[in-house]
Amino acid sequence: MNDTTNLHDLMQQLGRDAVAAQRVLAVAAAEQRNRALLAMATALRLREAVVLEANARDMDAATAAGLNAAGLDRLRLDAARLAGIARGLEEIAALPDPVGTVIADWTRPNGLHIQRVRVPLGVIGIIYESRPNVTADAGALCLKSANASILRGGSESQHSSAAIHACLVEGLRAAGLPESCIQLVPTTDRAAVGEMLAGLAGSIDVIVPRGGKSLIARVQQEARVPVIGHLEGICHVYVDRAANLEMARAIVLNAKLRRTGVCGAAETLLVDAAAERTHLAPLVRDLLGAGCEVRGDAATRAVDPRVVAATEDDWHTEYLDAIIAVKLVAGVDGAIGHIARYGSDHTESIVTDDAATAERFLARVDSAIVLHNASTQFADGGEFGMGAEIGISTDRFHARGPVGVEQLTSYKYVVRGSGQVRP
Amino acid sequence: MNDTTNLHDLMQQLGRDAVAAQRVLAVAAAEQRNRALLAMATALRLREAVVLEANARDMDAATAAGLNAAGLDRLRLDAARLAGIARGLEEIAALPDPVGTVIADWTRPNGLHIQRVRVPLGVIGIIYESRPNVTADAGALCLKSANASILRGGSESQHSSAAIHACLVEGLRAAGLPESCIQLVPTTDRAAVGEMLAGLAGSIDVIVPRGGKSLIARVQQEARVPVIGHLEGICHVYVDRAANLEMARAIVLNAKLRRTGVCGAAETLLVDAAAERTHLAPLVRDLLGAGCEVRGDAATRAVDPRVVAATEDDWHTEYLDAIIAVKLVAGVDGAIGHIARYGSDHTESIVTDDAATAERFLARVDSAIVLHNASTQFADGGEFGMGAEIGISTDRFHARGPVGVEQLTSYKYVVRGSGQVRP
Repeated sequence: MNDTTNLHDLMQQLGRDAVAAQRVLAVAAAEQRNRALLAMATALRLREAVVLEANARDMDAATAAGLNAAGLDRLRLDAARLAGIARGLEEIAALPDPVGTVIADWTRPNGLHIQRVRVPLGVIGIIYESRPNVTADAGALCLKSANASILRGGSESQHSSAAIHACLVEGLRAAGLPESCIQLVPTTDRAAVGEMLAGLAGSIDVIVPRGGKSLIARVQQEARVPVIGHLEGICHVYVDRAANLEMARAIVLNAKLRRTGVCGAAETLLVDAAAERTHLAPLVRDLLGAGCEVRGDAATRAVDPRVVAATEDDWHTEYLDAIIAVKLVAGVDGAIGHIARYGSDHTESIVTDDAATAERFLARVDSAIVLHNASTQFADGGEFGMGAEIGISTDRFHARGPVGVEQLTSYKYVVRGSGQVRP
Repeated sequence: MNDTTNLHDLMQQLGRDAVAAQRVLAVAAAEQRNRALLAMATALRLREAVVLEANARDMDAATAAGLNAAGLDRLRLDAARLAGIARGLEEIAALPDPVGTVIADWTRPNGLHIQRVRVPLGVIGIIYESRPNVTADAGALCLKSANASILRGGSESQHSSAAIHACLVEGLRAAGLPESCIQLVPTTDRAAVGEMLAGLAGSIDVIVPRGGKSLIARVQQEARVPVIGHLEGICHVYVDRAANLEMARAIVLNAKLRRTGVCGAAETLLVDAAAERTHLAPLVRDLLGAGCEVRGDAATRAVDPRVVAATEDDWHTEYLDAIIAVKLVAGVDGAIGHIARYGSDHTESIVTDDAATAERFLARVDSAIVLHNASTQFADGGEFGMGAEIGISTDRFHARGPVGVEQLTSYKYVVRGSGQVRP
């Protein structure tokens, strides 16, 4: 980009092209959209060498720039990962079509027949970090739901994303759909994000930000269009006095350590003070034994000298790593209070055999997902049976929890009459 | 208000009080919320004299300030209107409870039982013009859905709104609910709107603006929280070549003239060019005969010398008055194109006996409500069978069309397991 005016003009044009493409998509049959998704998968397999070569360029630059190991791992593609991306496109094609579904249907006493029918949201802007797979996943989920998308990936992944995007465009072309159904912002200029957050003169209907705290802060400050927010997951497991100890041990280990980098990973373990003598030590020793760092309150530190003292910051922290904060609380109400104060309204689990205690927790913890006797790592659209997802919304508005193709739709009311006028 | 700091502190305190009250509301039984609504109706009836006296003060001041006739009519209360407001509260109490409803319910192959359950949105800020009845309607709809509300009414209605609000508080008290469940901003300082749009430090979850274009523009510029938008209703009736003429005449007259000040009133009549000789003249003469001003294209002007020439502006205008713009279009696709260009995505109707043409219109017109052979004046939550409404959303996000108590909720996922961990 040479100057601000050029960038502004470029972004406005992306917006206009997306609106025009979405008009075509909105009336395209499901079969045509699915055909495009399958052709994209084929293109990705055919162009494997090109995509991996582009990814190697990104990896070299990122390594030279000193990107950390977790970042490099998110950026890295190989044949297996690319095959997984292609398979993901086929799975999205196989999902039921969300568009045109009749959600509700009733007839009024005056004979008016009213239907609530799913329709696309329109144009979705997605701003994400350097994970090349998001380019395919997000573009495909938007296409499945008949939305046009404008994708802005992290700059470290620019060559990988461009190579994957070329395959998506090949699929659109093969199915006879406009190429502008899925557009990738062709610049790493950060001002492009500002243009998207301003809505591109009304052409973007929704923004989905996926990234760290600085992106979220910018979105909250600048966005002039609706946002489906994906904040951090400070997820809690509460082990109640009436918990089956073996079940609690299995759930805590799984919730924390199955994968530590996902938003549904547990970050804090709350143990009922009434279970201190029975449950606390085995849970803490399991975690330490599995290589997890434990930061605890006084009672937790008393269990094992390897436990580090937790500070106030720990209760607020999404580690996304093999670290857990542990605290005794005064029963289920203590847990509910702690979660209300420190949680991020994402996913929390209670382990107990007491049904009344479980129901109290499920009713009073105000998070997108609340679980009883199950691991927080089930916080996932696929595990919920919703197919692929674009993320887990921590907003209360429009979509909460896993955001799959249904959550990328709006609805309209279709009313059929026989000449009714209103008295 | 003496200075900005005081206003800021006052508004922040309103926000904190609303959050605290909503926590109580969230776990209050439906019966307690309904008891409060019924007690509010009783209080309004008991305090009729006080409310009408307060309204007289507002009317005197507004008359002296030169408020126009439509504005004075919206501001005026009398015994019958007040009785209607009280009855409205009782009708809201009688609606099914939206909170805690299980929207969906399924079991996964691993035995996890997943429910999607309605929960309140939280704290709703409502910014409205000088219609005292909105104070009662909006506060009651929010209470029914277990949301706390912060109400900011127009300054001309300040005494009327305060008197009505006192009755709402009396009802809350009678049912043992916190008075801060429904708060009225106690200042006419316009900076209070800015504080609300900034979200009161995270305490407001959603803003519902109801007002003219200047308010909407301000909301779009300043809002830092989600908005349920209520833009104008530039509603269209399209009379197709295959329309039954008598049906078309009845629908057009009703859509335009039943009530001209509502957002579902038709503002533009589109007539199929193929029906020029059969349908145009009777439709235009009906409207003129009923006292409606007609602004038309050349063909429409040829019908009657009283027809005024329409300008480009007319196709963009929500008259909210006995004025209609009339134009010939090239069949149903001409109508769809005109609506896409000039409409406000609110409510549009087609009159035709041709089923395929009707389905094409219903599928391709992307408005919140599309009707076949029925008047646009059915755009109303009550007419849809949804009970009372806070308005008609012209947004695509979260809520579209009539916004009743269900649309003022979010949901959460409640997952019940038996020790499941994720492989």
